[in-house]
Parts: sequence; structure tokens; C-alpha cells
Amino acid sequence: MTRFTKGHGTENDFVLVPDLDGTLELTPAQVQRIADRRAGIGGDGVIRVMPTALSTDEGVRALAPTAEWFMDYRNADGSLAQMCGNGTRVFAAYLMREGLASGPDFTIATRAGAKTVRVTDDGYAVDLGPWRLVDEAAARRDGFDAMVRPRHGKPVPALSLDLGNPHAVVMLPEEVGLDALDLTSAPEVHPEPANGVNVEFVHPLGPGHIAMRVHERGVGETRSCGTGAAAAALATRFWSGVEDDTPWLVDVPGGRLRVTPLPGQRVELAGPAELVADGDFPL
Amino acid sequence: MTRFTKGHGTENDFVLVPDLDGTLELTPAQVQRIADRRAGIGGDGVIRVMPTALSTDEGVRALAPTAEWFMDYRNADGSLAQMCGNGTRVFAAYLMREGLASGPDFTIATRAGAKTVRVTDDGYAVDLGPWRLVDEAAARRDGFDAMVRPRHGKPVPALSLDLGNPHAVVMLPEEVGLDALDLTSAPEVHPEPANGVNVEFVHPLGPGHIAMRVHERGVGETRSCGTGAAAAALATRFWSGVEDDTPWLVDVPGGRLRVTPLPGQRVELAGPAELVADGDFPL
Repeated sequence: MTRFTKGHGTENDFVLVPDLDGTLELTPAQVQRIADRRAGIGGDGVIRVMPTALSTDEGVRALAPTAEWFMDYRNADGSLAQMCGNGTRVFAAYLMREGLASGPDFTIATRAGAKTVRVTDDGYAVDLGPWRLVDEAAARRDGFDAMVRPRHGKPVPALSLDLGNPHAVVMLPEEVGLDALDLTSAPEVHPEPANGVNVEFVHPLGPGHIAMRVHERGVGETRSCGTGAAAAALATRFWSGVEDDTPWLVDVPGGRLRVTPLPGQRVELAGPAELVADGDFPL
Repeated sequence: MTRFTKGHGTENDFVLVPDLDGTLELTPAQVQRIADRRAGIGGDGVIRVMPTALSTDEGVRALAPTAEWFMDYRNADGSLAQMCGNGTRVFAAYLMREGLASGPDFTIATRAGAKTVRVTDDGYAVDLGPWRLVDEAAARRDGFDAMVRPRHGKPVPALSLDLGNPHAVVMLPEEVGLDALDLTSAPEVHPEPANGVNVEFVHPLGPGHIAMRVHERGVGETRSCGTGAAAAALATRFWSGVEDDTPWLVDVPGGRLRVTPLPGQRVELAGPAELVADGDFPL
């Protein structure tokens, strides 16, 4: 039997599989079976918890001196993933509960490099790293650099951001609610990005506070997307004209996240992490 | 911490919560939280395993002399349910594994009465009880007694059956595949049933063998529906004109079920049951 822990961060949910001596083989087929919501345990992804020093990935292993534990993240389809913002908090909560890490901050290894986690009053904050406007000149001139058309909707202007993955953020007019959006299929984006794009629709709630819904490329609408929340807050901050370090609250369907611009064009994502259940399954 | 086991029958999945001394309170809110696929453990339903004699339901308690264990089934929304064909197999698999029941057959208590379970080579068979044609005169005269129109589809004739719950079964022409159906919304049914109806679309695969997709009332399309599979087989058997006791194979999206007409206008449903994982969670 193999141990597991199920957890979620703003309803982005994961099956954590501890592999503290780095001996577990986890094939794509096994990951698919674990992540299957009906025939398996079920989750958006599977996270193997293993010592960084024992990774077979040389790039990851190089992080071992500073980050003891490697978040070996797999998508539900069995493929490898670089990183997952909501996943880092759940990973951090697991390390803390198991006594494998201690606050006030520590570093974890991911395929996208070492990530610093900070323990907060109500969860965890993770430095997501650098971000940038994809076309800063157009953004500063027009406020937008793309057009997005949701299913059954009208084309609306959007701002493109890169947070390691691509985002297009749309500010809905205040009189248009998020509920009216049809996100059952991917919004059309012009110019069309070669490898798809995550699209965030933002509704303003007040100073430093937005609500959003997100369509993740290759996935569909999700209850939460960490980098998407950060992109939505950073785009809204850009449009506001006040580009300071004030934190932004972002309400997603699965809960509330806090996005804080960090010095050096970096961004921090903070929010809750819950460990829901622990158990065993035959691998 | 509360123990749980996750299991499924043809990908109709359940969280089993053992309550062997009948002391567990399980509120609708707790059931919703357990069944939540992202914030909880996740399942189509929650099944409390408890001694029949300790049920607070007088009707259930009356079954205690013959059925030691009560399948206290709750829908994912927290409401009580009478019965669940796929759930009975998973419940039976749990009782067998835990040594709470032994083959070759035993009886379990449900809100729809005592159900006899038989251990088979590849799973469990459950006597679902009596069934009937809703309008036998019309059925024998026309072969049909209703019309069904799937989303974006043409109206097609259907046969109404009652298996404790209502079903309308449609035989698709051989050249029409099941894949083309749009079941993202409930098919229209005429005459319109007062409390909704489960709709099964059948594609013939060979003698005694059909494939089907099902839209469950109040739920949507599911990977499997036990009484739906039985209704689909019984309707096809009726149309075949050979109303004998030959078993029918029914391929559903989540696997394969076997439906056997029993003497006295009863029907048996057989199929697999898998226990996927065991664990603990804070109730």
C-alpha cells in the first residue's frame, strides 16, 4: 500500500504521495489512475514529495543545497509540470504538518527553480518569481495588446502578461457580472497565441479587490489558478496607474487569494492550503 | 478522525463511512463536504455502513432480522436516497473485505427494502426487485409510449419503464452512434413526467449485448446508472420479442454490467465493485 494525502488550495486539489526515500516509480498511467475522480482518488494533479538530492533531474538536483524537498508535480494526464502556484501552498502545508520544514520561511524545489515559501497567519505565501508585460509599449500606449471573445460574447480588449506561463486579462465593464460569462469553451484570442493562453476575466469589487473567473489552456474553467490570479491583479494594478506594492485581494470561485507585487518585478501569491484526508491505496 | 473507504462500481463512485456502533451523526452539510470533489474527498454519494438494528428509521429497522447491515445512502447534495444499484455492489464489497458478510449470498438493508446480494466470479449481483412497463397496452400495441428529443437532436420514440424510479429508453438506429449525442442538458420528454425521468439511449452491439449512455434526472450524464442499465436491457428485450431469462450485457461509459431477468417480473444487476483507497479525515 502507498500512503497519500489529499489537499487543496482555493479548491485546486492534489493528491500528495510521500516518497521520502526517493524510491517510488510513478508512471504516467499510475498518475492518471490516481487523479481519476471516479475510478481513482481524484485531483487536478499528483505531487510526489521527495528529497531534492534524490531527483533524477539534474536541474532539480542542483537546487538541493538550498531546497531540501522537491515538489515533483504531475498533471492529471500524467505529464510533468514545471510549477503550480496553488500546489506549492499545499506542498508547504504538508511539509509543515509532517515536521519536514519549519517557518517562518523555507525554500522548495520545483522544475521551474527554487521557490521561497513564507508562513502567514492564514496560510502560505509563495514568491512566484518575475513577471512582465508581453508588449509593454502597446500596453503603455493603449492599455491593451490583444482582443478576447468569450463564447456567445462580444470581443473585449485584453492585456497580455507572462508569469512563466502566458495570460490574457480582460477587465469587464462594471455593469457586466462574471456570472453571465460562458466559459464552457476556450475564449477566442487575437492575435492567436501559438501554444494557447490562460484567459482571466476580472470584475472590480473595490480598491485593491477584484473577482475573477479563469479559463486555463488545455483544461477549461477551473475553480482557481494561482498565476492567473497574480496576472489579473497585476493587470488591474497596471490599469489603475498606481504601480506600487500594495497587496491585491483576488476572489476566485474556489476562495480568496492575495497578490503582492515584490521588488525587482517579482510577485507573491498568498492563500489558504487545506489537507483534507490521509490514507493508503494500492499503487 | 473518521475512517473512510473510497470505492466505485463502473465508475459510479462513493465514499463509504463505517459506523459500526451506529453513533455517527452525518449532517447534510457534512455529506456535501465529504462528497465535494475538490474541497473534500469526492464522490457521487456517501454511504454510511451501520447496523440495521441501530437505524433511527423504523421501516429500515424492521429489516434487521434478515439484513444485518444498513446501506445508509446519501446523495452528494446531502439528501437521503432510497437505493443505488451500483452502490449496493460497493457496499457488498466492503462488507466482504471487512468480514462483516460472507458469500455465496447475503441480504442488506436499504431505504427501499431488503436487497439480496450474490457473490459472482467477477463482482456482485443484486436483485433490484420488481419492474414494469408504465403503459403495457401502448407498449404492446406501438412498441413505444413517449417521445424523447436530445439536445440538438430529432425527436425519437421511447419506452417508459418503472424500476422503483422512472426511465425512458430510446433505441437509436444502428447507423447512429452514441458518440454523436449531446447530453449536456436534459433531453425533452413528451408527455413530460411530473418529477423528471432518467433517459437511456441504447445502441445495439449484438444478440444480448447493448451499449448505452444515460442522462440521470437532477444529475446530468453519468458514467453509469444501475437501474438505467437494467431498464435499457429490459426495453431492448421487450422490443426483441423474446422475453426469456437470457442475461444481457450492457456497456456503459464506466464499464460493463450484466442484467438478468428473474422470475416474478424481477431483475438482477451484476457487475464489478472496486475499493480504491482507505483513510481518515476530520469530520
